[in-house]
Amino acid sequence: MFNKIVIFGVGLIGGSVALALKKLANPPQIIGVGRSEQSLQEALSLGLIDQAVTDIASALENADLVLIAAPVAQTPAILRTIRPHLAAQTVITDAGSTKSDVMVYAQAELGDQFNQFVGGHPIAGAEKSGPGAAMADLYIGKNVILTPAETTSPQALQKVAALWQQCGAIVSNMRAQEHDSVFAAVSHLPHLLAFALVEDLAKRDNAELLFKFAASGFRDFTRIAGSHPEMWRDIALANKQALLHELNMYQQAVTEMKTLLENNDDEGLFNLFEHASLARNAWAKSKIQS
Amino acid sequence: MFNKIVIFGVGLIGGSVALALKKLANPPQIIGVGRSEQSLQEALSLGLIDQAVTDIASALENADLVLIAAPVAQTPAILRTIRPHLAAQTVITDAGSTKSDVMVYAQAELGDQFNQFVGGHPIAGAEKSGPGAAMADLYIGKNVILTPAETTSPQALQKVAALWQQCGAIVSNMRAQEHDSVFAAVSHLPHLLAFALVEDLAKRDNAELLFKFAASGFRDFTRIAGSHPEMWRDIALANKQALLHELNMYQQAVTEMKTLLENNDDEGLFNLFEHASLARNAWAKSKIQS
Repeated sequence: MFNKIVIFGVGLIGGSVALALKKLANPPQIIGVGRSEQSLQEALSLGLIDQAVTDIASALENADLVLIAAPVAQTPAILRTIRPHLAAQTVITDAGSTKSDVMVYAQAELGDQFNQFVGGHPIAGAEKSGPGAAMADLYIGKNVILTPAETTSPQALQKVAALWQQCGAIVSNMRAQEHDSVFAAVSHLPHLLAFALVEDLAKRDNAELLFKFAASGFRDFTRIAGSHPEMWRDIALANKQALLHELNMYQQAVTEMKTLLENNDDEGLFNLFEHASLARNAWAKSKIQS
Repeated sequence: MFNKIVIFGVGLIGGSVALALKKLANPPQIIGVGRSEQSLQEALSLGLIDQAVTDIASALENADLVLIAAPVAQTPAILRTIRPHLAAQTVITDAGSTKSDVMVYAQAELGDQFNQFVGGHPIAGAEKSGPGAAMADLYIGKNVILTPAETTSPQALQKVAALWQQCGAIVSNMRAQEHDSVFAAVSHLPHLLAFALVEDLAKRDNAELLFKFAASGFRDFTRIAGSHPEMWRDIALANKQALLHELNMYQQAVTEMKTLLENNDDEGLFNLFEHASLARNAWAKSKIQS
């Protein structure tokens, strides 16, 4: 289906797409483009890409698809460098964690070729990053959300869906704004809450004592507070409105819980904890089975 | 050191102590006492205990140590049944997650024998519960906090410390109130925050959609929201004041983070996320090395 694919950013996300495609019976030629010469050389030597290219014009020549898997802040600049060399049959997609902002960038930078752009978000990640962290099976059974605009070409949408299906992913479509409100709730909110908890404890006078006795519950709750600060600053700002809404809803939920506790409402607390634990355990079970 | 130990509650916590002691060169006789005949029979058949006893008088005869490892709500009643049969050389300890309440119960129920009681909290747990979940190595390298009162007999304290050291644990002493404020921050607060997040999402109209796209970050953050509702209701109420203080501090921290976001303060957000992620990752590293 694909003869030539160009990947901007050959780290964990882009590199794992490359490795998955390399396993196909007829793998496409994969061209890597990146800011860091070192990453490109590493991607070449690991066999993620067939060629590392700095000349955008030659990279894009006869390309079926361009995947932008660099930090989201670079997306407008990358789109700008692509635009002059973008043929009518080349489809562009990205892998950023927020989608409304990316759709706005793409519309601004691609103009009348915006219909060739499909926003995308693979719900997969790992602790590590860089080309060395790439895995052929990263996307198997994982969700990928595509966020076409009303004007997006159906052929472009179908090509991008095929790309991710070839990597083993389950593809869903959503409007960019719906994507951003869903992920504000299930991903961005917990990340900010985990950062807030660690910071709340880390800046106290007795932080050392507290951390000494923090155990496995704290470890799991705060794992995502070890995430990349620059990436999360960008996500928070890009999805500011939805995230502020979520933070307000959450503070309301905590206030309600505090009221139960202040009133010694043992039945109310039990019901809340039971409802939450049943929901959480049912969710975990459904994820194992799926 | 110990000839006879009595364990009230032969589940994960009590059963794991029993298994660890069974591995000693000269293991003590271990007597199990419990509400559930089924659990006692299971503990017997698994070899956790040498004898299951319902007659408290004969259980306590010549006992060196009594470990109360039943749900904390049962502690006053257990102390009451022990008191009439408590010899001067028998030391009592417990394994509850809150300590100020337990020390108050013990003082009320044991009267002039309160100096034979040492509050204890092993910082170890597992997903599973019951005698079948017991593991001989559960406490190896784990923290156990003992909370003697000013009047506690030094010999009693030393015996309880020895018990846990024989299980491989690292023993620290603290006042009960200090214990409860430390654990309000590093354990009870994250548990309540995780319950609140799941409940916040689970009761929405689009909960099914949200849970569909919740992934590994959500999974780890909410793992502790799958905890036992009855146990956590009891812990929350037992440690109410410290926990309300923590919930207020946390809401303040979230409000400060919201202000940074409202003001598009990219530098402030970056600094907060970076400080938190450095602290979290340094903590995780120290725990692996220790």
